[in-house]
Amino acid sequence: MPDLDPRDTWREECGVFAARTSRPTDLATLAQLGLFALQHRGQESAGITVSNGREVRTHRGMGLVAQVFDEAGISRVRASDLTGVLGHVRYSTTGSSRIENAQPVTLRCSKGMLALAHNGNIVNARPLRDRLMAGGFTFQTSGDTEVMANLIASHADVDTVEATVRAMGEVEGGFTVGLLDEQRVLGLRDRHGVRPLLLGRIEDHTWIIASEPAAIEVAGGEVVRDVNPGELVVLEERGPRSVQALQPTPAPCSFEYIYFARADSRLDGTDVHAARVRMGEQLWREAPVEADVVIGVPESGLAAAIGYSRASRIPYDIGLLKSPYAGRTFIQPTQALREEKVRLKLAATSAVAGKRVVLVDDSIVRGTTSAKIVQILREAGATQVHFRVSSPPLKFPCHYGIDIDSRKHLIAADHSVEEVRRQIGADSLHHLSEAGLRAAIGARTGLCLACFNGEYPAGEPAEADKLALERR
Amino acid sequence: MPDLDPRDTWREECGVFAARTSRPTDLATLAQLGLFALQHRGQESAGITVSNGREVRTHRGMGLVAQVFDEAGISRVRASDLTGVLGHVRYSTTGSSRIENAQPVTLRCSKGMLALAHNGNIVNARPLRDRLMAGGFTFQTSGDTEVMANLIASHADVDTVEATVRAMGEVEGGFTVGLLDEQRVLGLRDRHGVRPLLLGRIEDHTWIIASEPAAIEVAGGEVVRDVNPGELVVLEERGPRSVQALQPTPAPCSFEYIYFARADSRLDGTDVHAARVRMGEQLWREAPVEADVVIGVPESGLAAAIGYSRASRIPYDIGLLKSPYAGRTFIQPTQALREEKVRLKLAATSAVAGKRVVLVDDSIVRGTTSAKIVQILREAGATQVHFRVSSPPLKFPCHYGIDIDSRKHLIAADHSVEEVRRQIGADSLHHLSEAGLRAAIGARTGLCLACFNGEYPAGEPAEADKLALERR
Amino acid sequence: MPDLDPRDTWREECGVFAARTSRPTDLATLAQLGLFALQHRGQESAGITVSNGREVRTHRGMGLVAQVFDEAGISRVRASDLTGVLGHVRYSTTGSSRIENAQPVTLRCSKGMLALAHNGNIVNARPLRDRLMAGGFTFQTSGDTEVMANLIASHADVDTVEATVRAMGEVEGGFTVGLLDEQRVLGLRDRHGVRPLLLGRIEDHTWIIASEPAAIEVAGGEVVRDVNPGELVVLEERGPRSVQALQPTPAPCSFEYIYFARADSRLDGTDVHAARVRMGEQLWREAPVEADVVIGVPESGLAAAIGYSRASRIPYDIGLLKSPYAGRTFIQPTQALREEKVRLKLAATSAVAGKRVVLVDDSIVRGTTSAKIVQILREAGATQVHFRVSSPPLKFPCHYGIDIDSRKHLIAADHSVEEVRRQIGADSLHHLSEAGLRAAIGARTGLCLACFNGEYPAGEPAEADKLALERR
Amino acid sequence: MPDLDPRDTWREECGVFAARTSRPTDLATLAQLGLFALQHRGQESAGITVSNGREVRTHRGMGLVAQVFDEAGISRVRASDLTGVLGHVRYSTTGSSRIENAQPVTLRCSKGMLALAHNGNIVNARPLRDRLMAGGFTFQTSGDTEVMANLIASHADVDTVEATVRAMGEVEGGFTVGLLDEQRVLGLRDRHGVRPLLLGRIEDHTWIIASEPAAIEVAGGEVVRDVNPGELVVLEERGPRSVQALQPTPAPCSFEYIYFARADSRLDGTDVHAARVRMGEQLWREAPVEADVVIGVPESGLAAAIGYSRASRIPYDIGLLKSPYAGRTFIQPTQALREEKVRLKLAATSAVAGKRVVLVDDSIVRGTTSAKIVQILREAGATQVHFRVSSPPLKFPCHYGIDIDSRKHLIAADHSVEEVRRQIGADSLHHLSEAGLRAAIGARTGLCLACFNGEYPAGEPAEADKLALERR
Repeated sequence: MPDLDPRDTWREECGVFAARTSRPTDLATLAQLGLFALQHRGQESAGITVSNGREVRTHRGMGLVAQVFDEAGISRVRASDLTGVLGHVRYSTTGSSRIENAQPVTLRCSKGMLALAHNGNIVNARPLRDRLMAGGFTFQTSGDTEVMANLIASHADVDTVEATVRAMGEVEGGFTVGLLDEQRVLGLRDRHGVRPLLLGRIEDHTWIIASEPAAIEVAGGEVVRDVNPGELVVLEERGPRSVQALQPTPAPCSFEYIYFARADSRLDGTDVHAARVRMGEQLWREAPVEADVVIGVPESGLAAAIGYSRASRIPYDIGLLKSPYAGRTFIQPTQALREEKVRLKLAATSAVAGKRVVLVDDSIVRGTTSAKIVQILREAGATQVHFRVSSPPLKFPCHYGIDIDSRKHLIAADHSVEEVRRQIGADSLHHLSEAGLRAAIGARTGLCLACFNGEYPAGEPAEADKLALERR
Repeated sequence: MPDLDPRDTWREECGVFAARTSRPTDLATLAQLGLFALQHRGQESAGITVSNGREVRTHRGMGLVAQVFDEAGISRVRASDLTGVLGHVRYSTTGSSRIENAQPVTLRCSKGMLALAHNGNIVNARPLRDRLMAGGFTFQTSGDTEVMANLIASHADVDTVEATVRAMGEVEGGFTVGLLDEQRVLGLRDRHGVRPLLLGRIEDHTWIIASEPAAIEVAGGEVVRDVNPGELVVLEERGPRSVQALQPTPAPCSFEYIYFARADSRLDGTDVHAARVRMGEQLWREAPVEADVVIGVPESGLAAAIGYSRASRIPYDIGLLKSPYAGRTFIQPTQALREEKVRLKLAATSAVAGKRVVLVDDSIVRGTTSAKIVQILREAGATQVHFRVSSPPLKFPCHYGIDIDSRKHLIAADHSVEEVRRQIGADSLHHLSEAGLRAAIGARTGLCLACFNGEYPAGEPAEADKLALERR
Repeated sequence: MPDLDPRDTWREECGVFAARTSRPTDLATLAQLGLFALQHRGQESAGITVSNGREVRTHRGMGLVAQVFDEAGISRVRASDLTGVLGHVRYSTTGSSRIENAQPVTLRCSKGMLALAHNGNIVNARPLRDRLMAGGFTFQTSGDTEVMANLIASHADVDTVEATVRAMGEVEGGFTVGLLDEQRVLGLRDRHGVRPLLLGRIEDHTWIIASEPAAIEVAGGEVVRDVNPGELVVLEERGPRSVQALQPTPAPCSFEYIYFARADSRLDGTDVHAARVRMGEQLWREAPVEADVVIGVPESGLAAAIGYSRASRIPYDIGLLKSPYAGRTFIQPTQALREEKVRLKLAATSAVAGKRVVLVDDSIVRGTTSAKIVQILREAGATQVHFRVSSPPLKFPCHYGIDIDSRKHLIAADHSVEEVRRQIGADSLHHLSEAGLRAAIGARTGLCLACFNGEYPAGEPAEADKLALERR
Repeated sequence: MPDLDPRDTWREECGVFAARTSRPTDLATLAQLGLFALQHRGQESAGITVSNGREVRTHRGMGLVAQVFDEAGISRVRASDLTGVLGHVRYSTTGSSRIENAQPVTLRCSKGMLALAHNGNIVNARPLRDRLMAGGFTFQTSGDTEVMANLIASHADVDTVEATVRAMGEVEGGFTVGLLDEQRVLGLRDRHGVRPLLLGRIEDHTWIIASEPAAIEVAGGEVVRDVNPGELVVLEERGPRSVQALQPTPAPCSFEYIYFARADSRLDGTDVHAARVRMGEQLWREAPVEADVVIGVPESGLAAAIGYSRASRIPYDIGLLKSPYAGRTFIQPTQALREEKVRLKLAATSAVAGKRVVLVDDSIVRGTTSAKIVQILREAGATQVHFRVSSPPLKFPCHYGIDIDSRKHLIAADHSVEEVRRQIGADSLHHLSEAGLRAAIGARTGLCLACFNGEYPAGEPAEADKLALERR
């Protein structure tokens, strides 16, 4: 499990939802439902841009979808004649947490109104921005989205589709982008397909682009297929068309399968829940142990714990309770609550008392939370604690949209597995191997494993620093 | 699982936390931690009263503990020289939801300042109030707490302890009460012990009264024992003393074991998590079925599902995901979110696709949520859905502190099990028997099963109506 | 002018508005309008209690009338079938500033529901409370209102009117009270008539009680007459009736005329604006000076400045501008804004440049603001500043509802006029004499001048301390 | 007086405050004080940008200065090492009221960070924007400020000063602009000097640019001089330097003298308070009348009323009280409060009873408020009401920063003075003549009288529509 301090947690930057209908209707509510299903991909801000073919309106705000789009909020974009919608949920580090960075970004250019929403990172954002500024361009935010937007606008003499195709040829990195102009909705995925993006439909009248299947389904649609790496999908009044803008070299993010994506997602052909159970089964095969009970760290470690239990035939039980009241990130905890946060968030049940416990989690970041959990289990009477992690050790930062900008907080970056085991106080510790992870995911293409092995399929920024644009 | 609409859900009215120390210190923070651990017992309001032996101060507010006691809130009661503290979390129906009803109730009387916090119901509150009003007394709220407070104050010529003992002899019902005056902290439990109450300690200097063990433990203490039915525990500077004010006739609430209490609680000798697992095992013995997977409705049905799986050897899996963003009760949902609320809150995983599913939940209230869940599972590919409920059918209102005031919303009140099965669309439906429930709990005394069988061990109000006082 | 720091300013505690109609209608809106017109008498909290003859409802809150009774607030008491209403605005020192002290106070007693709203102070509140507590009564607030309420309820065997008459015989002090039970609205004024209270009507169907005429007029009514000192006015379905409960010994508050009351009020036969102009005329007669311009401190010194100008024939001008943005008391000023508060609130115009200035204000409390104003005028080029105050020196606290609880902040309490003149840096300083004040008011009865001469017509509390009840 | 409904009121768009110091210090607090003194020029949003020579930070928000820059707000820009600051207060029509439009606007370009704050309007903003968009530029707001900013940035090969001079040559209209880059603060005034701008200093170390003198003074500085029309003032570490970028053709706004500017301002050589008194004197000369009392509509009509009284020797009195609680624009009034708004805001005193009244106001917009005031005076006993207005009839929209975008609400646009007199129910009505206004102001140069005579000295936009950019 990622550590409990929000600043230490791995966080997906964003989620995207967009739709285009040939039967003008209230697409804002559709986006509200879809974004609600993507809330786990970003809790800092939410935004929806709508178009009725003549006029474009946006409402964005800090907070959860249900907060930003309460009755007052949704009423600012709701209308009965909408033809296009683009929605976004976002997370980011505290440093850049401001309403100005909320998305969709909207702007006027020679093509009329444009709105963009983005998930992931452009690794050559800075040289692109410098080039544009030398031509007199200005930038009001520190985000990649504005770079992408200005790049598209700078191709002033061609239409949105052609300008976007040209821009796709100029940017490098791992990302997906949703775009809306007065007439169309566009969705694109970088040529490595690092971040997920799917195409869905409601009957034959409404076409949807979204980061995960549940967003399409909760909006009343069905998934058609994954958008291909390097593909630009254009949703127009007459329906969707596809432009394969770039040659695909697939490397989807393995961490989506391990932790980020919803368990009910099927991404690039892999069912996420089933993959997580297989990770646990594989863990048993790689690191069996004699024990009395298998428990998972809720919620992210539970599926792998079930897999481990199933493979090992050691009984599964609920060993840790998670308080639903501890995670309210928008409440500033007092000092007392902060100090006790792991203990307030997690409590052990009687299931571990007098037992040899296998504890399964999806990852270890700093190690401090893991150490606290081991301690809680021992205090509750666990006689042994065998820690099993359903991913390889995290050693490298993500440059494609996950919020860890340096190696300095990753315990595995400069400690051996044995050192980590000692620090967290477990009787044994095993990480799933890269090969085991690949097998559990069962991907038929490449995978991005950069955070485990430092091999970045979509390139690295000159300066690997998320705030680089800002600090200039 | 209780239905998702907050107005339909069974809710524990309250949780109580109190402490007295001989080593003056910041007891407010202790209460904040303790109340945080009792948050599940009441989310509507929170309050803390503190005493330093000379002066009594209170801060109360609407909302969660972490909201009411943010830095500004806790600073209104925090002090380094506190000797006594009394805290409370509360729920109540919307009708009476106002700050004036938040607890602790504080008042001045001939004994000086008194603060009271209460969990449960006094069934003869109205005749007691009428008697007091005839003597010129006035009442500012519609709550039982003020009746109890005025009853104690009306014994103007004796001290707080003696006045409380006399008052205990006058009230009927199922409740626990925490009391604080300038010198003491008192905790009492009705003679049936319907609601839980425990005594704890931090070394030999601080003594604690709380509704559940976790509150004592998170405050750094250890549980000493359950307070006895009919017992008044008095915490003073020199330590605790016990007054067995009334002859005990124990009948603790069975629903605490089924649903309300924390899984890590041990109440009146029974470990709650283990009891829930046993309820699931017992369900298999009472109603076995041939199936491929056992799943529970999160969170309240999971332990019984594990029990059912363990007894039946049918594999356990995670079949339903629960969104952590759906339950934020303080966000007013828009119409769109309200209509889709079950679907936004619960989603099925691939674990049920093509499977014969045993679905375990702790209870059925209206049946509408259950029906929706069965539908979600079928849409996700479940070929059969066998519903198993770890409690008998709910047929009667609770008069001892759980918020259901009439039979009209209880589907089992006027429908047979077969009728309910048909309404919720399950292939089979079985409720745990009363005998099975008793066995699983393993209580060595009587149990209150009134909501199942209509036998009220602590009496019934003349008019069985929670708002009766108010409507007068 | 009272000093600018809200904590130092003289503040009227409260305003009362009540009505009874024989033609059931939306009295809540009437009260909202009436209270808006009384806002100057209390900005801390506002409340309205309504009755339809069967049921009593209340909404109270912290803040201005327009904040507490925004659409959401007023909707909690608005109804088309109301027969009685009681409204209140309140101020109080910070120490006791909490929603629990907001009025009306509502309670149940043997007479049914009662609501009370109060303006002024009961000087024997503490002995009355002690007597009631000895009989087992309890008190939840530190206010006089609850004492009055319990006193009335303690006469449990008679009706509201008779019980109120009896209670009037037991309390001492300067106050007015509005009362509402399920059938009636009552208004009473202490036998000295210290605080104002008037009777109004809308045609022959609705009768109104209010602290000042504007409240009656803005509600669409016309003033009938002042309520007499010692009179209890009972508004019932058949119309009003009067009970002269106590022998009157009139001594209305002179500070209402000097500062507190609205300039458009006519109280006990005296037009307030005209009286203020006469105070300025009298000031000239008492302390003429050769000068070039007369200016007033806005707003409270302007009318007297016009009087001074008119009597002296020295031209009147606008010498000081008052920022409408400085007085927003609910905004916590930063340190920088606090330090500069006089300068941010008041600025001099060119009207004083190179002039000998007569500066007129209604009173001097601490003297710090006055000193700052003199300095501002000199910086703007005034060659002389002659300070004229339209009231005698303030030397004693008010025990009848004005918020100054000790002599320690009153500069005139221990400084001579000459010493004050020197401290504030004026070239001359004159206070209106008591005789001049009486003449300007032209009252045909006694006047309360206690804050000037220490003679308290309605008695003094044993301990002259507003927070006494609380500190017990 | 402008009508009371905020949507109908003439509102100055903005106020600007900027400073550069050679002695690094907390310039944020200086700007806070300065903006507080400019609050009347814009209540919708406030913002401050600071620079320490290396880094630029901004805090902006919706609301008053004291709200946006409460302790939390000011702490986001406060620092001990600041060298430059730029602050802004803003008003705008509801349509565009959003945080995104709050100023200063900040952006990155080839020159580094730039911040702009703007008061007034650029009449050729749209063609300039179209030209820039054709070159690939993008626009995120609908405001003139972003056009100015992009225009400056588009001169990518020269420094900020030279780029600004070039941009000044391209824009047309009536405006002032404050600019901050990492090293400098710039202030410029259009070549007609429509909006005011002054240069001030604190000793020899800090130089200030501000819209009115009080902002300089409250910040502890002294006014040096007005910035000249067409002048660019550059504040650098070594002090200020002046670039006369354009040939001046002065035409300062006459409405600043009539209504907008603070009474304590001296603008382009004219003292505002004295000018307003002279307008009243001139009104008497143009339209004498036999009467008993002269009263003004508070606050904006009072100075002219004093002038009228002084010239006519008819006594001046306070005839109308203005409630300080009525203008809180951020409180959404209920229907009841809205309907009675004039009556709740203004009340007549006894000064008009039985009198022939001269009523002086600064302007008439829709006429509805004026009619209500005449009615209030008659109800209070005025036997005659002679209306005198200290400005000519308002017939044309302002294109230079005052918020009236069409003629449709101006009663004088299509009604004769006699028709208006009849509609408002006055016994007589006279508007100050243009010649009288010029004389009263005593300007030694041209004046902008466009709203009275339709002659726009700084040009008209192609489409005279404030929202034009937005609607595109």
